[in-house]
Amino acid sequence: MRLEDYIRDIQDFPKPGIIYKDITPLLQNPEAMREAVNRFLDELGGAEIQKVVGIESRGFFFATLLAEKLNAGFVPIRKPGKLPYKTLRERYSLEYGEDTLEIHCDGILPGEKVLIHDDVLATGGTAAAACKLIEKMGGEIVQCNFLMDLAFLKGKEKLTPNKIVSLFTF
Amino acid sequence: MRLEDYIRDIQDFPKPGIIYKDITPLLQNPEAMREAVNRFLDELGGAEIQKVVGIESRGFFFATLLAEKLNAGFVPIRKPGKLPYKTLRERYSLEYGEDTLEIHCDGILPGEKVLIHDDVLATGGTAAAACKLIEKMGGEIVQCNFLMDLAFLKGKEKLTPNKIVSLFTF
Repeated sequence: MRLEDYIRDIQDFPKPGIIYKDITPLLQNPEAMREAVNRFLDELGGAEIQKVVGIESRGFFFATLLAEKLNAGFVPIRKPGKLPYKTLRERYSLEYGEDTLEIHCDGILPGEKVLIHDDVLATGGTAAAACKLIEKMGGEIVQCNFLMDLAFLKGKEKLTPNKIVSLFTF
Repeated sequence: MRLEDYIRDIQDFPKPGIIYKDITPLLQNPEAMREAVNRFLDELGGAEIQKVVGIESRGFFFATLLAEKLNAGFVPIRKPGKLPYKTLRERYSLEYGEDTLEIHCDGILPGEKVLIHDDVLATGGTAAAACKLIEKMGGEIVQCNFLMDLAFLKGKEKLTPNKIVSLFTF
């Protein structure tokens, strides 16, 4: 099964000149969803995971599925102001300006083994900020999972030396 | 297992005078997550489902899990401007002002049996708008699922005559 066949190109979204990779056709197909989950799990090779972290909001789709299969807890990383309890924050640079991510301060316990998931690895800024949050809390990052890697944006370089898995590359 | 024991009260979030029901302790606990999924499935009683619809964004957490267990597709309902393909929109009233929800126009096929999920049933405005979108696309709503019902807000009244399931009530 070629999972990339379930990704739809959308011209000029969210702004002119951008070709957006729409994952909703994959989400609508239970076989494709199952295949993606199994490939992520295969890459883990049986490694123990205590927490799966999903990055808002398209990272949530697979993160709870992975948590369930791994008998792990699920922890969301969200945009500022969305998480109601005490949080840790991490600012990071965007192409123009900056943004912030938050995680609940009780989301990860020191020493816990963590899987981080998001749908797309683009410039890597968001995922690198997520890694910093996990490290600050004393978590051990076992794997950073993405459905796809937009390789021309060289996001992987920002995540070294973590283990990075993407199911397909554009 | 009392699932409500995994819900944390947050005073004055998102604004003064509100007690917010934080579901992240439940998400962090794999046994509590599994129990919630199983209770939703028990309520379905084996009914066939082709699509599970999750409402942005806390509805996403359980919607993909339910889709996987039911061998159904997952379809997100999102705030305006987030979905990249052609959408159907539904406006609905809030306490002050109004808001809009969107779904991809190919998300539900006519005659498909649909499970709708969100984390909280409050005034019911959001869920009622989601139901209208499904009905406009010719989908058949089998069950509307919520982790919790804030019963004093009488959201159920807006969803009649759909089957409404909430795992606990505050």
